[in-house]
Amino acid sequence: MIPSKDDIVKAHQRIQSYIHRTPLEHCESIDKICGAKIHFKCENLQKAGAFKSRGASNAVFKLIESGFQGRVATHSSGNHAQALSRVAKYSGIQAHVVMPENSLKSKVDAVKEYEADITFCSPTLEARESTLAKVMSEVEAVEIHPYDNYDIIAGQATAAKEIIEEYSPDIIVAPVGGGGLLSGTALASRYFGNNVKVFAAEPEMANDARKSFESRTFVPSINPQTIADGLRTSLGELTFPIILDHVHEILTVDEESIIKAMRLMWERAKIMAEPSSATALAIVMNNPEVFAGKEIAVIVSGGNADLNNLPWTK
Amino acid sequence: MIPSKDDIVKAHQRIQSYIHRTPLEHCESIDKICGAKIHFKCENLQKAGAFKSRGASNAVFKLIESGFQGRVATHSSGNHAQALSRVAKYSGIQAHVVMPENSLKSKVDAVKEYEADITFCSPTLEARESTLAKVMSEVEAVEIHPYDNYDIIAGQATAAKEIIEEYSPDIIVAPVGGGGLLSGTALASRYFGNNVKVFAAEPEMANDARKSFESRTFVPSINPQTIADGLRTSLGELTFPIILDHVHEILTVDEESIIKAMRLMWERAKIMAEPSSATALAIVMNNPEVFAGKEIAVIVSGGNADLNNLPWTK
Repeated sequence: MIPSKDDIVKAHQRIQSYIHRTPLEHCESIDKICGAKIHFKCENLQKAGAFKSRGASNAVFKLIESGFQGRVATHSSGNHAQALSRVAKYSGIQAHVVMPENSLKSKVDAVKEYEADITFCSPTLEARESTLAKVMSEVEAVEIHPYDNYDIIAGQATAAKEIIEEYSPDIIVAPVGGGGLLSGTALASRYFGNNVKVFAAEPEMANDARKSFESRTFVPSINPQTIADGLRTSLGELTFPIILDHVHEILTVDEESIIKAMRLMWERAKIMAEPSSATALAIVMNNPEVFAGKEIAVIVSGGNADLNNLPWTK
Repeated sequence: MIPSKDDIVKAHQRIQSYIHRTPLEHCESIDKICGAKIHFKCENLQKAGAFKSRGASNAVFKLIESGFQGRVATHSSGNHAQALSRVAKYSGIQAHVVMPENSLKSKVDAVKEYEADITFCSPTLEARESTLAKVMSEVEAVEIHPYDNYDIIAGQATAAKEIIEEYSPDIIVAPVGGGGLLSGTALASRYFGNNVKVFAAEPEMANDARKSFESRTFVPSINPQTIADGLRTSLGELTFPIILDHVHEILTVDEESIIKAMRLMWERAKIMAEPSSATALAIVMNNPEVFAGKEIAVIVSGGNADLNNLPWTK
């Protein structure tokens, strides 16, 4: 069932000693450039470098509360793999992660450090899913999907709950990939906020969520090439209806604007946002008719950027 | 007079609505690497990108409280120039800044944005001082020295005061250049801490503070070439005696260790430390016999790194 207000309150209680309550940062220069007041919710400073630790820990802790003692599994090339491996290790259960063979070495190393069992596969969704099915049947593991899981959604919702506890924004902006963070943000804003509108940010080059939202019909993401690598996935069966009901609008931005916003966050605010996260500030910068004069919370979803290969040095 | 406990409490009250109370961040991977528990005081997230806003605002606000309505001046190539210009603009007084003609364009632009009057000079200490003297006599300005000023020291001390209000470290580590941050940290640790030892970090290539500390005689810094550009200055007449009395030890590190620590902070903790700040973590990493098993607060003094020219991409 779609997480209730109480589900999100319980999720927060369940995970709070295990995650960071991340800071809400503010930068005058960026306010001036945008003509708005912006607070950044720094999930780049979250455990394992991204908001994914919220959902993964809620899902795993809730399983364990129910008496579960088995194994967990997922396929992921990035932040969810790290988050799930970390909480599994902490909880004394074994995680199995299917990773595409072209995953970044730094991400593979992080997952190894958390002692997850890794199975590599071809870098296609089909290979990831079939390999995961095989691993799960072999080791009898329970799948923890990166976003299409109500406990994951309730966990991701705690970021917006924390924002609203500290600050009263007119608007919250979150990036959208599979929609776990966005659907959680939308639910938390409805339950805890005071007339907060939720906007989603998406790269033009991976605009399946916007198309789905506008047509009210699921449109898949097919091999998009955006620099915002966390936003290449399609919406989920569980996340899409929540987004349709509770998100105000999905806006898209070009690649150049994403890089410009990312650089601005690094240079002026000293916030290391990964490209996916910079997408949220980019829509604020590009749409003054929507955002000027407003109090805005921007969720900085993660900070796992490739430091050897920053986009503005190319 | 050397700032008293009450001076630092008053400084904190005076500046607190104007500065950020910066977060204290923690990173498991770095703890594991260092074998210690480390909390980072993120002054890279301070207004104008460095702790310098604390001292500059205390000095300017205190002047204004005393009825001052004139102009302020300083020479600086970097963070102090930005901090002073920002607080002067906020207070409705004119700042005059002497900057060496080879200052980074981004820093000159930031000072211009705060509407300070800039005079360029040759990049030598002599030219900076003589040009400042000339500017001050022409416009009748009061000098706000970047570190050799008790109100500046009391302002910088508020960073360590905030640390101790939230956390009880065995050790606080701060980088040392002119000694404003270090002397303030040492005083705050003595007044507010419970047996907190203060260690200073300095590049081997600019080891004048260590030499001064060990010989108990002022040794000047002569054109050092370290990457830690904020730590190239000599100790001051006011800061040196405080450091001698209240700092436990000054440890030095090589350039490679500074770059390694900087990268670790960016990659694992998502904390954008400038090279000067990374020096503090570098001494913790290089001296396990001193730091292992301890609760340590590391002051991340600033985040004004050159994003086009990161040291590990060279």
